[in-house]
Amino acid sequence: MPAERTREHTAPVAAARRRRLRADRARQLADLLRRQVLLQGFPAGLLPHEDALGADYGVSRNTVRQALDLLRAEQLVERVPGVGTVVVGAKYPHGLDRLMGLAETLHEHGRVTNEVRTMAPVPAPAPVAERLRLEGPNTDVLYIERLRRLDGLPLSLDLTYVPMDVGIELLNADLENTDIFRLLEEITGQPLGTAEITLEAVNADAHSAAVLQSPRGAAVLMLERLTHLSDGRPVDLEFIRFRGDRITMRGLLHRSV
Amino acid sequence: MPAERTREHTAPVAAARRRRLRADRARQLADLLRRQVLLQGFPAGLLPHEDALGADYGVSRNTVRQALDLLRAEQLVERVPGVGTVVVGAKYPHGLDRLMGLAETLHEHGRVTNEVRTMAPVPAPAPVAERLRLEGPNTDVLYIERLRRLDGLPLSLDLTYVPMDVGIELLNADLENTDIFRLLEEITGQPLGTAEITLEAVNADAHSAAVLQSPRGAAVLMLERLTHLSDGRPVDLEFIRFRGDRITMRGLLHRSV
Repeated sequence: MPAERTREHTAPVAAARRRRLRADRARQLADLLRRQVLLQGFPAGLLPHEDALGADYGVSRNTVRQALDLLRAEQLVERVPGVGTVVVGAKYPHGLDRLMGLAETLHEHGRVTNEVRTMAPVPAPAPVAERLRLEGPNTDVLYIERLRRLDGLPLSLDLTYVPMDVGIELLNADLENTDIFRLLEEITGQPLGTAEITLEAVNADAHSAAVLQSPRGAAVLMLERLTHLSDGRPVDLEFIRFRGDRITMRGLLHRSV
Repeated sequence: MPAERTREHTAPVAAARRRRLRADRARQLADLLRRQVLLQGFPAGLLPHEDALGADYGVSRNTVRQALDLLRAEQLVERVPGVGTVVVGAKYPHGLDRLMGLAETLHEHGRVTNEVRTMAPVPAPAPVAERLRLEGPNTDVLYIERLRRLDGLPLSLDLTYVPMDVGIELLNADLENTDIFRLLEEITGQPLGTAEITLEAVNADAHSAAVLQSPRGAAVLMLERLTHLSDGRPVDLEFIRFRGDRITMRGLLHRSV
């Protein structure tokens, strides 16, 4: 700190520095606790007392409180008077290692049901026609919009485009209770092959938030996925908004390819 | 619609239905345009006129406007009077197919620099000791906090824990300009092996948002990653907050394993 700085300036600067350090430590602690919360690592869903957490992590009680505030803002924990800090949120792991439908990947966690909001043939917009390799724009494509739930809780809003020759068979299928992936394999008689995916974090717009029963602006994990049959033909273009507070993506990356 | 419903009720219900349909169509269109925006698919970064987009996608001008509003809220496009709607945002693709450092994965897009906010030995918190397989909690571990930028723009805030025998060599390394992955391979003389990752979308807390120069509550892509050397030893535990408006994760998934 420069020597010419007067005492009047130094005190606020030092206070700001302390606040920054405490905020940094709170984030560090919150990141470590978050994982234990999500992996159900606290017996009976009850976090240790603030003093115990402070001692375990070598931080002040104020820092512990600030860390718990961060987890509370994410709706992962709640403070219950007379009880302490308890786990109230759960995120479900979606596999990133293998191409799987939602019901498949979450079968250990509960039952996936799908509310079909829209299902109808539409003229394919140019980018859809191109990616699904249709004969040209305005060729019909089946458009499906589903709100997907796990044991009744909204998880994701999925917009799906399927070429009409395959899509026609989906019109009478049990979409409420079955992953589209499974139906595509049944209809075409061949397994799926690969899917190109992109993942982004976005803030939910007002309408999507309302459908997902999230607060406006809530963080959404957005997945765009173009899925091919094993013969290479693209059959399923999806735009999926997962509620950020209910889903994590888990995978294993390799250094060499 | 039930027959007993009066005309006074029907009109608002029909209006609500029209609003919902328009909002649904706006989201559909926004999802299709988003990809073209991100892949720089519009010549000179200029989107077609609203009327042309309406004709191309078979939707009303109001729907087009609502779709462009969604992209504007994500800070991907802006309306410039006398010019039209122009692309103003860019997201950089981070590979999900191979374990790579940020400078490696983004080398075609610009230069990554790292502001080291903290670097010091700390007693390992219990969950860190466990995951890095240290002899016990309170064994020292090197803690590093970096704000990472691409061509000067903040991209991510990374909290990193490295076992001290390896970390000691990082203290004098060029962390400002070099990925930790590369340094770990140099120090240990062996390539990295695999990393377990989890990805989440969260809303940025006030302090993290300030460090990343994002609005409070901005969507953040959060990556937790435990990286192992090729001999299997865990050497690098990271908690990374990527700005949601600057990063996408791209990968290829396979149906069979």
